[in-house]
Parts: sequence; structure tokens; C-alpha cells
Amino acid sequence: MTNENRQNGKNAYGKRNSKKRYLTYRKATKRKSFQPKKSSESVRIAFLGGMNEIGKNMTLYEYEDDMFIVDCGTAFPDADLPGVDLVIPDFTYIENNAGKIKGLIVTHGHEDHIGGIAYLLKKINIPIYATKLTIGLIKGKLEEHGILNSTKLVEIKPRDNITLGNFNIELIHVNHSIPDAVGLAIRCPAGVIIQTGDFKIDTTPVDGDMIDLPRFAEYGKKGVLALLSDSTNAERPGYTMSEKSVGESFEMLFRKAKSKRIVVATFASNIHRVQQIINVAKSRGRKVAVIGRSLENLVNVGSELGYLNVPEGVLIDINLIKNYPDDKMVIITTGSQGEPMSALTKMAFGEHRKVSLTPNDYVIISATPIPGNEKMVSNVVNELMKRGVDVIYERMYDVHVSGHACQEELKLMMGLVKPKYFLPVHGEQKHLQRHASLGVAMGIDKKNIYIGNIGDRIELSEDGIKFLNNVTAGAVYVDGIGVGDVGSIVLNDRKHLSKDGIIIVVATIDSSSGRVVSGPDIVSRGFVYVKENEALMNSARDLACRVIDECYDSKYHDWNSVKTKLRDEISRMMYDKTKRSPMILPILMEI
Amino acid sequence: MTNENRQNGKNAYGKRNSKKRYLTYRKATKRKSFQPKKSSESVRIAFLGGMNEIGKNMTLYEYEDDMFIVDCGTAFPDADLPGVDLVIPDFTYIENNAGKIKGLIVTHGHEDHIGGIAYLLKKINIPIYATKLTIGLIKGKLEEHGILNSTKLVEIKPRDNITLGNFNIELIHVNHSIPDAVGLAIRCPAGVIIQTGDFKIDTTPVDGDMIDLPRFAEYGKKGVLALLSDSTNAERPGYTMSEKSVGESFEMLFRKAKSKRIVVATFASNIHRVQQIINVAKSRGRKVAVIGRSLENLVNVGSELGYLNVPEGVLIDINLIKNYPDDKMVIITTGSQGEPMSALTKMAFGEHRKVSLTPNDYVIISATPIPGNEKMVSNVVNELMKRGVDVIYERMYDVHVSGHACQEELKLMMGLVKPKYFLPVHGEQKHLQRHASLGVAMGIDKKNIYIGNIGDRIELSEDGIKFLNNVTAGAVYVDGIGVGDVGSIVLNDRKHLSKDGIIIVVATIDSSSGRVVSGPDIVSRGFVYVKENEALMNSARDLACRVIDECYDSKYHDWNSVKTKLRDEISRMMYDKTKRSPMILPILMEI
Repeated sequence: MTNENRQNGKNAYGKRNSKKRYLTYRKATKRKSFQPKKSSESVRIAFLGGMNEIGKNMTLYEYEDDMFIVDCGTAFPDADLPGVDLVIPDFTYIENNAGKIKGLIVTHGHEDHIGGIAYLLKKINIPIYATKLTIGLIKGKLEEHGILNSTKLVEIKPRDNITLGNFNIELIHVNHSIPDAVGLAIRCPAGVIIQTGDFKIDTTPVDGDMIDLPRFAEYGKKGVLALLSDSTNAERPGYTMSEKSVGESFEMLFRKAKSKRIVVATFASNIHRVQQIINVAKSRGRKVAVIGRSLENLVNVGSELGYLNVPEGVLIDINLIKNYPDDKMVIITTGSQGEPMSALTKMAFGEHRKVSLTPNDYVIISATPIPGNEKMVSNVVNELMKRGVDVIYERMYDVHVSGHACQEELKLMMGLVKPKYFLPVHGEQKHLQRHASLGVAMGIDKKNIYIGNIGDRIELSEDGIKFLNNVTAGAVYVDGIGVGDVGSIVLNDRKHLSKDGIIIVVATIDSSSGRVVSGPDIVSRGFVYVKENEALMNSARDLACRVIDECYDSKYHDWNSVKTKLRDEISRMMYDKTKRSPMILPILMEI
Repeated sequence: MTNENRQNGKNAYGKRNSKKRYLTYRKATKRKSFQPKKSSESVRIAFLGGMNEIGKNMTLYEYEDDMFIVDCGTAFPDADLPGVDLVIPDFTYIENNAGKIKGLIVTHGHEDHIGGIAYLLKKINIPIYATKLTIGLIKGKLEEHGILNSTKLVEIKPRDNITLGNFNIELIHVNHSIPDAVGLAIRCPAGVIIQTGDFKIDTTPVDGDMIDLPRFAEYGKKGVLALLSDSTNAERPGYTMSEKSVGESFEMLFRKAKSKRIVVATFASNIHRVQQIINVAKSRGRKVAVIGRSLENLVNVGSELGYLNVPEGVLIDINLIKNYPDDKMVIITTGSQGEPMSALTKMAFGEHRKVSLTPNDYVIISATPIPGNEKMVSNVVNELMKRGVDVIYERMYDVHVSGHACQEELKLMMGLVKPKYFLPVHGEQKHLQRHASLGVAMGIDKKNIYIGNIGDRIELSEDGIKFLNNVTAGAVYVDGIGVGDVGSIVLNDRKHLSKDGIIIVVATIDSSSGRVVSGPDIVSRGFVYVKENEALMNSARDLACRVIDECYDSKYHDWNSVKTKLRDEISRMMYDKTKRSPMILPILMEI
């Protein structure tokens, strides 16, 4: 909004600000009135994840003493987090407000939106609201963690409403790379907030309807206080192609494959993709076998709940593939990101127990590498090619479309919703900024655009966006069954160890005389081939002897000082001789 | 060549095979005749690097007892080689044939072609032949290693010839992202081999001439036995843009930057890029400062040898930038790949001692991420943006062009050289295969295309390509000053340590009684926060006590068996309790 307009009481779109913007909606009025009581009515938002990062999405809404959460996802650990299996949000702020949290609403069933739920529920037991498929996928997670029975799961449909204290939330159907995804219209006395969730506009989706743009438009017409919209693809111009276009590519490639066996790698959660592969396979008289635990799970849940339509006799057990000739088989597998332990990677390196690839295989990688995975995918492609396999990868054909809206779709959403405030979410800084600049292009005043950060807690009202404070938020690392017991010291040690290894200097000392009675011994791991470097190890031992003796001679019986001296001197010697800095760990045993 | 043609004595292009193909060339005939003595005359090639990998390029040519090397580069260690600084070729085969090696010819001055030379020369002292700039850059390396004085460096020009035993090699000017790059026409009695080196076709290069296509065509006309051509960009359709187009983008962006300070990140070796930045800066009345050791070195060597033209008064010392207003400054920096220790990364994270970035900075990243570096570059872009800096990156504008030929250029080269045999080189399997398929599209018979691998040694003659044997070849790791002392055991230890850390179990034992006199103590690094996990550590200690006692009670005094038992039992306990597998290192001290 320009200053001039602001003074005239007009919003960014030139319309006069009036109470009309806060008209209640039919369903909602049945329960509660959402007319702002006074101009200072405000709603608060705390960003607990998904801001300045990809993944780990979690947003908290607060109105007076009512709070609820949207999504609770995980992020994948990057190379900077060696040994970490999973990253979940920090729940401190949630725990501190446990009594106020009315529930969790989940927009769709991807890991970056549901992966953290089981960990959250162990801290605070709240009801979960989501659509059928999303509930189905959450159930699997809760079962794994043994907390399914103690959790209240509420299945709801798009256009249905949930009342959580002073909040009333309507689910709005959106398109995405998993069925049953929704955006939210969050209503409270301060106004209406639209959170899109992950979305794209697919006019010809494989299954179900086009995104419910009319509903977004209705809200826009009546007045929306704020829009929180998915920034993942904000750098990409144009429109995201329809999922159907991938089906057309499959038709063409299945023909090109001729009599070869076809292997398609895809994301385990993309039911529509799997459906299209099954459809084309069926039409060409091929059987389908599925490999990879997550894909098998998806096929089970998807078929059970009616999201995947598998014609009788098409699906066969992976153990039976040898009974069918190559030209009658399609194998769907995980590993489209080149993950080291995935089925496709094992096949590429000839290490899969059930599938051996030959030049009579035709592999389609139906995915784009997620940033950071480019090299792993490349390695898998190279290995497949060395086996003489035909490989369709990257942008050779249209074998993948994104599940996220590109620039034109993002602008369309803004144009329909016409928010007063715009808050780009779900993305790194570059995505958020690009999305913000699209908002400016759409006529939203820069002052009404807020690029948040994880941990920001803000207040929205007709008067403006106010930064309140930072709340505890961030990353908690899951390593094995440990949650949060790996922190920066442990990770720094791991990184140090991975670079130059460790040298352990161990000696047993008679504490009465201060004399060494055994050792010092030098043991190393990850440093050098010891057998080829005996001289180096011997000089380290000699140095350790000298340091300990000197300390003894100087009646210097403070063992911690001896250790520090050992660490410093051996570290210096090793650097001088090798230009490496292994971790030096002195251990002095006393008898 | 089709079988039919082969029977008719025609080559792949339908021309009759005749002695004409082996016509000697003018300059060469002055020294030696290269007419094949008999039909079985053959030349051998050993691939010592650059095949099925990017980098570490090294090729060996052999005719009878004469051998010479083309290029000797390094590769960057990937995430799979923690702590390794540099990867160089394995020189075993070279050392085993030391007496036969007549010299090393270097095609251009990039690290992946010159980085290994100093290490090679320490094994075998041979003369080096290269163009002026390449020699200049090699000199710097030899000086660092203290072997400049003992090395014979021979500066040659394009179209000049080098005679090495029975070989005569002509240098042919090519375009690339560094000046003074050449391809080679390698002549011996078995025929002519063209090795392109890294090349592109730039019809409007920033400095110097267009690639010497006429010379390649002349060889093609007279008959070429084999073509070894650069496969780096074989996946990319079309043509690589001219370096000049980047200059035009700079003109436009420098205008857009208005009164802001401009920071351009680029590859340190791209003299043409630096020249263009200097030119545009000068035309807009800005001073230029250079940051980063490798860039400073390039500017020095480039200016000294006349490859970089820096107008009087344009270049200023980095320490003086504060004396100039932002709109009068351009800073050229390293770090276009987001390298953690680079100047740009330090600036992005606010850790650079000399340059602090503000919203009045305009950063242009004039490079594309090398595969594997995408995430690092992305992190740097995000951090720059958080500082409010304008960032031009990736494909936002044409601020970078490749130095390598795309598909149409590669086909053009084949069409001019018209080789009998085609050997795609410099690339991963996917690049080599794609390049090979371009060869097929150009009418080269599949049988005459050889996709080699590192270590392959082959023989080329009119009769065909014959695989001879595998020679020792591969990767030698440089870590600090150690060359080859880090191998798979050390690297596996490093990877293991980085994932779950290490637990050291140490005890002192009276060897006469077998009783523990001190310990067992449990020390860990990179595993868990010890303070928060005392119970876990205590149970490990208890278990260690029990294991040692049991061994004592059973009179089981074989210390290695005790260690194995300690390792197994503590490892199992830790996995049960934490689902992690730290390295377990038992140390038993005897007195």
C-alpha cells in the first residue's frame, strides 16, 4: 500500500478499506462471529521451520490464548551434519505453551510436512486434523513410534471447517505432487489468513479436481489480511507443467524401449506418477513390480484408501520378475536422487539382490535432482551406462514435473487472494526474496511484505505487521534413537575426525612417583598408514616421552597441564612433518 | 566403417583408403618421414586420467620405444575423500617406462591439465613443451615445489612442431576459457592422431584469433587415423556462446548497478573474463581491486606475459578500496564456486578482513556451479541476500559462458577432422557415451568408436583398434605434504569416524597377574555429549570390566582376543542402546 493510499484508507488494490473485508463466512458464522471487535484486533504467527531453509515446515498461529500448529516436517541433513539421520524442528516454544495448543493441521503427506509429528507428539499430545490420505500416511509413522493408539486423528475434507478455540479453519483443495493436499483459510477475529501449503495449478490433474481457485477467489473478494505462500519455485519463470504431460512422455518412452525391460525411478510419495506408470504399463501389456520399502508402503496405503487404482493382475511380487520376459516387465523403484542405500543405486553398482541390470534394460529417472544431490544422481547415471543400460535422465525428455507453482502461478494466487500482507514462506532466502519481488510486481506495497526467518514471532493487524520477538526455534538432530544428543561439539569433532583422523597418546603413570610405568603408546585411526610411517609414529612416541619426563622433572604433577602440553607439542610436530592436523587425544592412566 | 566399405577399402566417409592418407606434412618432412612402413604400423595410447572422470587429464602415446605424455592434471577430491587436498594420477606406468618417455606436452594452463606436473617431475625429470602462458603458469607451480631450476621448459607456438623420437607433434591454436590453449596433431609412422585438448569454437574471442579450424581441416583432408576430442559439454545441444557475450552482459549490469559498488566473482584462471571486467570498469570510470591469491597470481603472470592489458591507474591495491566511493569501485574476487575458504564466501558470512558487504553492494557471480558445488553456491547466494546485497547468479543474465564445445561444435570438429577412429575423452561415462552417439550421427561406424576407461592401453592401426591390456592407473591422494599415504583403509576410518565418532576403551593390566590395575576408562569423541550421557558411559565401563574379568577368569591371556571381545561387545551394546555404530578402539596397556 502506498502512503497516499494508506491515507485515503485504500488498500494496495485501490479498494477502500472497510468493515466489508471482515465479513464472516457462512459456515463459520454458524459457530462464531469473526468480525473484528476493534481495529487493534491482532493475530500472531511464529515461524518454527521452513523459513530460510527447504524442509522442516512448521508454523504456529496464536490469537489471544488460542494456538494451533500447521504442519510438522523434517529436513534432510546435509554434508555439514555427518552421521545425523534426520533434522526435526525445535519444539521448545510449543512445550512452553503446551496448555494453549489446540491442535495440529497438516496440509499434505510429504515428509517435510509430516516427518516430525511423531517426535512432537512425544512432547505434547494434541489432536491432528488432515485429509484422508495424509491421515493414512501419518498413521504409519505413529505406528512405527508406537503412539498410534494414544493419538486423536481427525479426518476432514476440503471445504470442511475446523474450530480450534477462537480460530476457524477451512481446508481448500490444491494440486501438488501427492493427492489430497490442501491450503488453509484461517479465520479469527483479526481477519482471514490464507496459507497455501505446497501447491501448483494443474488444470488437468491425473486424479481429482483442479485446485479450488474459486474458493481462494471468494476469500480474496471478501478481504484477506495475509497470504502465506509456497516459495519453492519462485525462481522459475512461467508455469509448472501438468502431471499429465509426464504420462504422455511415458507413452512415448515405453514405445521407444521396444522389447527392453523398463525400470522407472521416482519419488516414493508421488502416487499420481505411480498411477501413470501403471496405466501405461497396463496399456502395453506389461506387469509392474515395485521395489523399495517407502514405495511399497505408498502402494499399499494408496490402494487401500482408494488413491491408487491398480487393475487386477498388473502388480506382481518383485520375487517373481524372473517369470516374465523383459518386454513384459516394468519395475518401479526408489533411488531417483541417487541415495547411496537406495534400490536404484544398488542396481547401478550391481549390488541389488533381486534385480540385475543388463543392456536389455531401459531406465527412466523420473525426477530432477534436489539441490545437493546432483553429483550422486550423476554417479548413478554413469554406473548404469557402464552396464550398457539405456538411461533417460534429467531434461532429456519431460519425465518429471515439479509439484510447486512457478512464477505465473504464484502471481495468479496473489491476484486471486488479494492479501493486504504478503509473507513468502517455504524457501531459502533467494526463494523468499524472489517471491517477494513477484509480490511487488503484483502491486503489493513493499511495506506490506514480510520476509521472515525461523524463530520470528510477528503480529498482524490492520495497523501493520509488527515484529514481536524471537522464539526458540531451529534444528534438533536425530541420530539413531537419540534426539538432540548430537550438537555442535559432537559434530565439530566428527568433522575434525573426518578430515585428518585421530592420534591417541596413552601412558600409565605411577601416581606416587609420577613415573611412566607403561607407554606412552601412540595409536592412530584415519591419519596415515601406520605400517608405512613407523618413523613418524616413533618420533611422536619419543616426543611424548620427553614431554612427560619434563613434567615429572619439573615436579609438574597437574595431569591436565601435562595433557595440554602433550596435545600442543604432538599437534605441532605432526603439522610440521605432514601439514595435517589430526585430533590429538592424550589419555593418562594412573595407578 | 561398414563391413562393405571395409571390404572395398573405403573409410567411413566413402573415400578410398590409400597411402595418400599418410602423406607427411611440410614441416615434419624436414625432420623425418612419417609414411607407414607397412600396413601393420601401429601407435599405442594409454589413458592415465580423464576417462570416466572430470579432471586429472593425462594421456600417454607410444610408438615402438618412444613415448610422450600429454597433460598431467589434478582432480578435486569429492565428499567421498574426506581430508584429501588434491588427487593426482597414478604414475606407476610412467615410472616403469621412465627411459622411454621423451617429454610432456601441455595443452593449456588449467589445473586439470597442469596440476600434477610438479608431482610427476619428482618421479621423472622430462622436458616440458607448452605455449608461453601455459609455461608461465607451470613455472609458478615448479617454483612452489622448488624444482624450477632442474626442469627443462620449452616454449612453443601454435603451428610449431616438436619432435620426440619417432613422434612429431604440431600445436594447433584452439579457443578455451584460458588464452594460449592448443590442440595437437600427433604424427608417427602409424598415422596422424588429433587430440583437441579442451576447446570451444569462439568466432569472436576477446583476445587473439578464432580456433585454427583451417589447420584441423587440412589434416582432415589428408587423412586422420584417430580423433581424441573433449567430451565435457557433449550433453549440451547447440553452440557455446562467445566470451564476448559476457562482456555485453557486464556492460548492461554495470549500468544497472548504478551507484553501488560492484563485486564480480569468477574463476581465477579466466584471463579473458578478467580483461572484460577491467575494460568495462575502465569505460565507466571505476577502479579495480583484486582479491584472492590465485587471482592475484593470474593478474601478475597475465600482465607480465602480455595476456592481460591493464590500463594505467585502473588497478588499485585491495587495502586502498576505502579511499574510493562505492560507485567508483569494482572488486574481482575468487569464490564463484562457493568454496568455504574463498574470499566471496568469507564476505557473504561477514568474515572477510578487508571487504564488508552492505546493501550498497552489487555482486555478480560470473560462473556456473560445477556439478557437486550447487549447494555451496546456493548457500553463499542466500547469505549475500540476507545482507541486503543485490546478487546476480546462475542463469539470471548471461554472465558466464562455458569454455567447452557443445554438440554442434563437437560435430563440426568431427566433420573437419574426418577421423577413421573416434575416441571421446575428458568426461564421465554419460559425456563419453553422448559424444560417441554424436560420432555415430556424423557417420562414423560404431565399430570405429572406442569409449575408453582410465588404465586402458590400446593399439591403433589401419587394421582396427585393439585393446592391449590394463596398466596401473588411478588416483593418488595428496593430503598435506603426504602423497599416497592416505588410502582406502585410512579413508574408510575417516568416514566411519565422521558418522558416529569413536569410543576408546583403555585399561592398564598387570601382565604377570592379568589383573586390571587401572581403568577401564571410556573416552569418546564425536559420539554423544558425554555429560548428558553418563549412564551410557558407565554401562560401557561396567561391560568392559566384565569382559576383561571374564577373560582373566578363563585364563584367557591372549590380549588380541580380549580386544576383539571388547570391541564386539561394546559395539553391540552401543548399537542396542543408541542405534549408532561408533568406532570402538580398545587399548590395553601392560605393566
